[in-house]
Amino acid sequence: MSMHSEQSAVTVLGLGPMGRSLAGAFLDAGLRTTVWNRTPGKDRELVERGAVGARSAAEAVAASGLIVVCVVNYDASDAVLRGDAVADALKGRTVVNLTADTPDRARDTADWAAGHGIRYLDGAIMTPTTTIGTSAAVFLHAGPEELYQQHRPVLDALGGTHTHLGEEIGRAAAYDIALLDIFWTAMAGYAHALAVARAEGITARELAPFAQGIGAILPPLFEQTAEDVDGESFSGEGNPLTSAVSSMAHIVHTSEAHGIEAGVMRAAEGMARRVVGLGHGADGFSRIAEVLGRR
Amino acid sequence: MSMHSEQSAVTVLGLGPMGRSLAGAFLDAGLRTTVWNRTPGKDRELVERGAVGARSAAEAVAASGLIVVCVVNYDASDAVLRGDAVADALKGRTVVNLTADTPDRARDTADWAAGHGIRYLDGAIMTPTTTIGTSAAVFLHAGPEELYQQHRPVLDALGGTHTHLGEEIGRAAAYDIALLDIFWTAMAGYAHALAVARAEGITARELAPFAQGIGAILPPLFEQTAEDVDGESFSGEGNPLTSAVSSMAHIVHTSEAHGIEAGVMRAAEGMARRVVGLGHGADGFSRIAEVLGRR
Ligand SMILES: NC(=O)c1ccc[n+]([C@@H]2O[C@H](COP(=O)([O-])OP(=O)(O)OC[C@H]3O[C@@H](n4cnc5c(N)ncnc54)[C@H](OP(=O)(O)O)[C@@H]3O)[C@@H](O)[C@H]2O)c1
Ligand SMILES: NC(=O)c1ccc[n+]([C@@H]2O[C@H](COP(=O)([O-])OP(=O)(O)OC[C@H]3O[C@@H](n4cnc5c(N)ncnc54)[C@H](OP(=O)(O)O)[C@@H]3O)[C@@H](O)[C@H]2O)c1
Repeated sequence: MSMHSEQSAVTVLGLGPMGRSLAGAFLDAGLRTTVWNRTPGKDRELVERGAVGARSAAEAVAASGLIVVCVVNYDASDAVLRGDAVADALKGRTVVNLTADTPDRARDTADWAAGHGIRYLDGAIMTPTTTIGTSAAVFLHAGPEELYQQHRPVLDALGGTHTHLGEEIGRAAAYDIALLDIFWTAMAGYAHALAVARAEGITARELAPFAQGIGAILPPLFEQTAEDVDGESFSGEGNPLTSAVSSMAHIVHTSEAHGIEAGVMRAAEGMARRVVGLGHGADGFSRIAEVLGRR
Repeated sequence: MSMHSEQSAVTVLGLGPMGRSLAGAFLDAGLRTTVWNRTPGKDRELVERGAVGARSAAEAVAASGLIVVCVVNYDASDAVLRGDAVADALKGRTVVNLTADTPDRARDTADWAAGHGIRYLDGAIMTPTTTIGTSAAVFLHAGPEELYQQHRPVLDALGGTHTHLGEEIGRAAAYDIALLDIFWTAMAGYAHALAVARAEGITARELAPFAQGIGAILPPLFEQTAEDVDGESFSGEGNPLTSAVSSMAHIVHTSEAHGIEAGVMRAAEGMARRVVGLGHGADGFSRIAEVLGRR
């Protein structure tokens, strides 16, 4: 295999729903795409579409200059990358790790990569599998700027927007963690709300249009709250924490009166009540971010 | 005071941020508006704009055929409405209670009103004070359809969209509870995310545009999840619960490693892990709504 074909080629390690979507987008872009997954058989459809199915991770790595890893977490990514055969094959190549985990794990992997002569970028995917290859996809990247620019053309085959957040290798994971914090908390609230609504005789489809209305007011509120937090202005004018805790208590009460556990809202209410107890009852929700961050 | 002026007149009881906004919108619409608040002095600006400041709640009630109540909760609304003088003055008039509380409290107040010859509608306001009088305001109503239609012209002065959800008096509060469940949980997640981001060296303003991106993907996901829940199809294709719990654990870990409490995400993760433990690891988040609602 010539250096030329290696450089316009890409390998995807990990063929879960996301890995398969990434590999599919590379194929659609006409790139020579090699794939591998721990459990065999997941490459079938991709191979039918023209991917090369490697028999081992080391073989998959040897096929391309750029190796994209997307497995469940960094325990899995370590299991895939850190064996001797794979580590040897990776030498001089670039890994873009699109696996989600903590900033610390990204930093640890970058250290390991540096110690083995492997070039390393760490990324995060912020949108569902269905967005990959479309303009709706959102990718975050961290690591050496030059290395990122070098591989940018291949990464662009994944569609959407790519943002390089800085050279500090943990930065994409840090954004990912913060954004998933919002995402999963909101989804937990929604799942709970659907259960409470049903207990009150309201179907999910009946609630959904109004839930979408709530979704629509969040982005401007996120913007305003961010201004307040950075500007250290915590005014609750129009929406004091005392009013929020009252509302939260009603939710817990209604939920538990229907026998539906309300642990998430109980925790949120407890957090808000603690902040009220610290004397911030007239402040807004931005005060909670400030108090949580106090050392 | 003639019946005519009483009928084109409206009284607002409770002049917190929301009560003041409601009264301001009534004034802007040219309605004769009488206002009262437990703690005096909150009516000053409204009186300057032409409102009648009543010296007692009973006096305020006597001035109008329609009485809008908007105080912190139903303990407060009971304290305002259920005294003998006010209850007597309310006889034959209509109360629209826009105070937020549980469906049970709305039902209890409707029973009390019926026993005192008071006509009663229960409502909920789903948008912030700044939306009142604009097209962005969202109001939910429950109670007798005919009574609602009768007062609709005055309520329309508040702007926005008004939806009558049915005659069952608890229905507006039930929607309110479910929607606030989504809202406050999401805001709790956002406040927490801002604290974690800051600990990672990311400012709120840096995170906000990406947070808005998360906000933008929620409405279609809400729609899809509602279809799944009503259709009892819980497939996690592309986003299994096992992947969600892994992600949630990373958030807890990163937060606590910075000394930031993660009680809300711990509760959400616990809920998701329990559902995985019941054998639903390959299902999607819609399964959580189903399991929470099991009796
Ligand atoms: N799905 C989405 O919409 C989405 C969106 C944004 C980000 N992400 C992120 O993308 C990553 C991959 O997600 P996913 O949706 O594809 O599914 P996933 O369930 O998170 O990951 C499944 C993949 O991980 C592999 N794996 C697990 N443990 C392993 C181990 N010890 N050794 C080797 N491989 C292991 C699986 O291999 P086997 O088949 O052998 O089990 C499979 O390839 C995750 O970090 C996820 O958070 C996903
Ligand atoms: N603000 C918003 O953006 C918003 C949005 C949607 C819905 N809501 C709902 O609207 C309602 C009013 O909210 P708000 O923002 O105006 O502020 P709030 O802080 O929830 O309520 C303040 C009002 O309640 C009164 N009150 C409290 N305890 C009382 C008692 N025991 N007896 C008589 N009055 C009492 C206060 O009177 P004093 O001045 O005498 O204390 C004041 O008029 C709440 O149910 C809230 O959930 C508000």
